[in-house]
Formats: sequence, C-alpha cells, structure tokens
Amino acid sequence: MNISDVREFFPILHQTINGCPLAYLDSAASAQKPIQVIEALTHYYEQNNANVHRSVHTLGSRATEAYEGARVRTARFIHAKQAEEIVFTRGATASINLVAGSYARAVCKEGDEIVVSAMEHHSNLLPWQQAAKTTGAVLKYIPLQADGSFTIQEVENTITNRTKIVAISHISNVLGVANPVQQIAQIAHKHGAVIMVDGAQSIAHIKVNVQELDCDFYAFSGHKMSGPTGIGVLYGKKALLDGMEPIEFGGEMIAEVGLHDASWKEAPWKFEGGTPIVAGAIGLGAAIDFLKQIGLDVIEAHDKQLTRYAIEQMKRMEHLTLYGPEEGRCGLVTFNMDHIHPHDLATVLDMYGVAIRAGHHCCQPLMRHFGAGATARASFYLYNTEADVDQLLNGLNKAASYFEGVQPG
Amino acid sequence: MNISDVREFFPILHQTINGCPLAYLDSAASAQKPIQVIEALTHYYEQNNANVHRSVHTLGSRATEAYEGARVRTARFIHAKQAEEIVFTRGATASINLVAGSYARAVCKEGDEIVVSAMEHHSNLLPWQQAAKTTGAVLKYIPLQADGSFTIQEVENTITNRTKIVAISHISNVLGVANPVQQIAQIAHKHGAVIMVDGAQSIAHIKVNVQELDCDFYAFSGHKMSGPTGIGVLYGKKALLDGMEPIEFGGEMIAEVGLHDASWKEAPWKFEGGTPIVAGAIGLGAAIDFLKQIGLDVIEAHDKQLTRYAIEQMKRMEHLTLYGPEEGRCGLVTFNMDHIHPHDLATVLDMYGVAIRAGHHCCQPLMRHFGAGATARASFYLYNTEADVDQLLNGLNKAASYFEGVQPG
Repeated sequence: MNISDVREFFPILHQTINGCPLAYLDSAASAQKPIQVIEALTHYYEQNNANVHRSVHTLGSRATEAYEGARVRTARFIHAKQAEEIVFTRGATASINLVAGSYARAVCKEGDEIVVSAMEHHSNLLPWQQAAKTTGAVLKYIPLQADGSFTIQEVENTITNRTKIVAISHISNVLGVANPVQQIAQIAHKHGAVIMVDGAQSIAHIKVNVQELDCDFYAFSGHKMSGPTGIGVLYGKKALLDGMEPIEFGGEMIAEVGLHDASWKEAPWKFEGGTPIVAGAIGLGAAIDFLKQIGLDVIEAHDKQLTRYAIEQMKRMEHLTLYGPEEGRCGLVTFNMDHIHPHDLATVLDMYGVAIRAGHHCCQPLMRHFGAGATARASFYLYNTEADVDQLLNGLNKAASYFEGVQPG
Repeated sequence: MNISDVREFFPILHQTINGCPLAYLDSAASAQKPIQVIEALTHYYEQNNANVHRSVHTLGSRATEAYEGARVRTARFIHAKQAEEIVFTRGATASINLVAGSYARAVCKEGDEIVVSAMEHHSNLLPWQQAAKTTGAVLKYIPLQADGSFTIQEVENTITNRTKIVAISHISNVLGVANPVQQIAQIAHKHGAVIMVDGAQSIAHIKVNVQELDCDFYAFSGHKMSGPTGIGVLYGKKALLDGMEPIEFGGEMIAEVGLHDASWKEAPWKFEGGTPIVAGAIGLGAAIDFLKQIGLDVIEAHDKQLTRYAIEQMKRMEHLTLYGPEEGRCGLVTFNMDHIHPHDLATVLDMYGVAIRAGHHCCQPLMRHFGAGATARASFYLYNTEADVDQLLNGLNKAASYFEGVQPG
C-alpha cells in the first residue's frame, strides 16, 4: 500500500465543508478511520459479537479469539515482550490514571517525588497532582526552555533518589517534538524510579519499541491512531503489572469471590473488570494492521515533511507567531496570528473547509509558559497532502484580511 | 416496527453454526446489534468523526452535537429530569465503581453500613467490598430465601439508620426477576441512605423510570441493550453528582489547571476525563431509538412469554433442575442437568447451533447459595422465537442422550 493512495481508504475526507474540500488538520485531536477499521467493527457486530472469556459457544470463542488476538497484535506493534503486558483501557487518560491510582499510591510516601514537565497534557499531569496530594509526594517539574522543550541536563538535575515516578510525554501535543525518552528512562532507573510515557501523540507517528526505550509504562489511545473511540492501551512491564492492585472491580477480573473478600486473576485481566471493550480492541487491531502495511517509518517521514513544508511557509507570514522548537517536528504546528483569537481563526478557516484546533490543547501550564491563553494548532497525518497545507495557508491569508487592522502576510 | 419482523434487522442471526441455524440464547451476556446501530457507527466514522467539545470546526460541532444528543436521548429513555444526570462510562461496572470510589468513600465512616444482597453480580458486589474495606463500613447482606429471592420484610430488617448505601440489582442475571426497587428506595430513604440500582439486566427488558423508582443512582451497559461494547451509563440525581469528586483525571473534565492544583467542570463532564467514548454513545443512542420504536412494553411481554414457554417445557424434563423463582421471570432460565457439567452441556448445545452460557455468571455467592458451582443459563431477547426455545429443548434432549447414564427427558 502506497501512502499517496491512502486517501481513498478514508471515506470522511471525500466531502466538502462550506463548499470547499475538507482539509482535515486536526488529527492530533482525533485521527480519521480507514474503511479497514470501520469494516472490522461491522464484521464483528454482523458475524461474531458475543461476550468473551466466560463463553464456550462458537460466537463467544470467535469474539474471545478476536479480542485476545488484538492484544497480541498490540504487543507486537510496540515490541512488548508478551501480550500479557497489554491492558486494554478506555483511552490513554484511563491508562495513566490506572498507574497513578494503583502504582503511585502504593509506592509513593511523604516526601517522595513524582517528576513531570510543564509541557504535559492534562491527562499526564492531573493524575500525578492527585497522586501527590494523596500520598504526600512532591510533584516536581523539569524546567522548560523558552521554546517549551527541556534539555537532558535539566532532567538530570530534577530526578533524585527520592524520585519514584517520572511521567513524561513521548511527543507533546503542542510542541510536536519527540522527547529523549530512552535517556530519561536511564536516568530514572539509575535513581530507582520508574518511567511512565504518555504516547498519545507518538504512537501514530513514529515507531515505538518499549523494550528499546526501556520504559516501564506506556499509554496510548486508539482514536488517535485511526482506531475507534473508547479504546486505549496501558503497556506495563509484567513484573510491575503483577505487583499492582486493580482500581476497578467487577466481573471478568476475579479468581474467587466470597461474601467479604475476593481474589483477582493475573495481569492484565485483573485490570479489565466488567465486559471488555471487545469491538474497540478489534478495531484497534485493524488500525494497527493498516498502519503497519504502510509502515511507521514512511508515515513519520511523510508527517515530518508536511510539517516542514508548513513551517517554511508560515515563517514567511507576517503577524504569525510559531510556538515550539523548529527542528524535528513531527505532525503539527502551533501558532497564533496577531489580534485574532485562535477560536475566531479556527471559525474562519472552517468557512474555507479547513479543520484546525484552537484553545489551550489541555496544556494550560504550557500555554502560560508561552504567555498565551490559547493557540491555534494544525496537525497532519498520513492522509494529508501539500494541497491541504496550501488550503490552510490560503485560509490564514483570508482570515488576516477578514479581521480588520491585520494585513495579509 | 413489529416485533415479529425484528429478526431481519440483526445480520448476525442469519448464519448457521455447526450446520444448524444459530439460536442465540446468550443475550443476558451480550445482546446482538441491529443494522440501525451498526449503521450509526459507520455513519459517524464515515462522515462526522472528530474530537468533541473543544472543537470549533464543522466535524467537531457535528460530533459534539451527536454525542450530547445521545446524552439527551438516554436521559429521556430512563425519564431522568435532565441530561446532566447522565454520565457516560465504559460500562455498568465502571458506573458502579464510580459511585463506590467517589460517593461511598466520601460518605461512609467506620461502623456505617453498605447493604447488598447475595444475588448481586460481582460488578455490584466487589466495588462495595472494597469501599467497605477502605472506609471501615460494614457490608451487610439481605438474607435470601431458598429460591434466591428476598422479601421486602427482609429488606426492612436489614436497613438501619447506620446504612449509608443500598446497592441492589433491578433484575438478577441468574434469577431473571425484578426486585421491588421502588419499595427498597423508600426504605433506604426513610433511613437516610441512598440506593444504587444495577440495571444491567433490566434496562433492555422493562421500562425504567428513575423518577418513579426514586433511585439515586442507576447503572447500565450499552452492549446488553443492543448497543456497542465499551459504553455504559451512570444515572445520578444531579445534586448527588454535583457533590461528588471525580475519580479519573485528565483533559476535557477541567475548568482550570495550575502546576499543583486543578478545578473541575460541572457534572456530568467532570466525570468524563479524556476523549469521550463518542462513537459508543452515538451507537447507544441508536440502540435506544430502535428499542423505543418497538416499545419496551412489547419487548417485556415478548421476553416473559418466551421464558414462560421455556420453563413450562423444561419443568417436564427429567434430570433437569431449574433455579430461581418461577413467577415473573423476564428473559432468562437458569438450570442444570444431572451428571452433566454446564460447560459440557453448553459445548454439546453449540454442536446444535444453540448458544447458552455456563458457569458462575459472575455470581459466586448466589451459586454457593444454590449449592451449585456453576449452572447453565439460556436468555431471551426481542429477536428470539419459540423456534429458538424448541431448538434449545431439542439440544437438551440430545445432550442427555450424549452423556452416558443419563436418559433423555
């Protein structure tokens, strides 16, 4: 499958918005789904739907096989050692909350440290704020440079022997640049800490090898990698998962239930109480197959090239501020235009068929670091083309004309 | 739409299993999906997929409208006062865990009581076991009669002024009989307690009016009412939801985020951290539309009639034990055949195209009450017919012949 032919598999892209072709530049919020994923869902519901694990009839066996098969494919996709290191969750947020609600609360004591950065998405920040409050641990921040990034030296300075957990995004949803997760893991481990990587923005754009990174936990969502909404993954090293208590309790996850006590299954099933997200996992498996067919290296090169192309053009525009590091950006640009609120900008762009995101991007601390209440963000994925970027640039010029007092760049 | 024509809308039913027509009698575990639900998912992914709430572009607005529209339809379906009383969760299990993890832990103190019954599904038992352990509350059981049911007198005797929460299933997934939830709610309220109703088995079979029942919380799953997997609902009275703290933290649910503190949105959004289960909620909305078109009263009458028909035939069979009350059963029969393990029975029935469930049905305490390690269960839904029941009965006779030493009934 060639990346230049890939658009034909995405039905949603073949529509006009306000009379213009849709230029969907909001994949960092939610990526579009190829027909392969949609058909996997339809096929499941039309042929194999049943509850899993506890079932001995044919549909139940098929559903169980498909669900557990998705776990195996997910494990292989991120190069986990075994399928049992994959916990299916509602999304990356739930995955991170599981580690913060179980591991952190068991391990952290008064005066211990949880290390994060101010570039974190709220989903990789609030769970740690809460864990710190509950346990008496100190929430420490790796200092950011002016462009929002941090240096490895600053990581070295922040992590100490009191640090129990380092929680860091692989790629920030505002900056679009990969953090040196492997090096940070080494530093964390040197101090006896574990590292939780928020992979929500990386998983769809770059090859992820959890063994090479040597991260302890890795979280991501299906819907940002062209899979369904409502499915996510927590990868955890098996020994860590084995030692963790579940935080949700119900059917499916038990070994034995008495009137006042219960015991759990092994990981990962002890974390999947209740009927699992069967169709979601199967759809995620189909998304993984699709991305692998194209190749993550091809996708990364494509996304980086489009981002470079956008940045080059946007740097030439007057009244436009770009945020974040310029080099190594993969898949998104964050910016503001003078005197135009990003919400207004997004609204005008929508009139020209261009879908971008505007707001704080669930990154209020990083927005404050930039002295901006909100920004605009255009994000690119495998189905985007230079024509989409041109449509964005054209829209930006129109917006500049549209708002009085600002001349087109 | 007529219930006798309803099968045509369920593609999964039109297949053979092991050369026999599929008689799907496992809807209590997971109900099948009509094409209306499958098409709602496809339509969403092919036309409108985007992240919700934070978006100002057209796809984002459409997705938000569809997602919040599903909330309104769900509220109307259970006669909630307002849409803001509907929290979307991963399923009934997650809904109950939310109340146990937030409300119970805030309200219960050492020596307080949480009242349940031994007929509860593990999903409405384990969260309360855990809440009791964490808070020092006492987990009290309403005593069961021989047939597994309890009397309202026993409820009166169990609930006291120390009771803070009563957690009870509307319909047990083993007994199939509706509990007098409205009366239990009155007793609970008289003592200043709240009532949490597990509606996983009732929502698809009988009309639910949360205001008439005057229950404080009501939980159910989409996949058991012909909706998608991975979506569920917590209904809560607005004042109670308003007073509760979230238990998951992330994007979407915040008002303001500082480096060490954050504040939340209003209910229900403060409980929906991370990207919501957008397609799941939309699929649930389509399932609700479908069920309403047929009519819950029609569905209830149909399910009860089929159950009566099955019980009448099965009572005539030798070597077969029926469990649970005989009267008022809606949608399921639970039974065992002498000398045949229910797993073996289910396996043989599958050879004849009949899908039933076998095991402890996530009800180990109730199984012990019956002195059975496991039972078989056949459950009926709107697409089942007397022919399906006949196929089951025929299969049971074959199974009896198949296993040595047991004569056909």
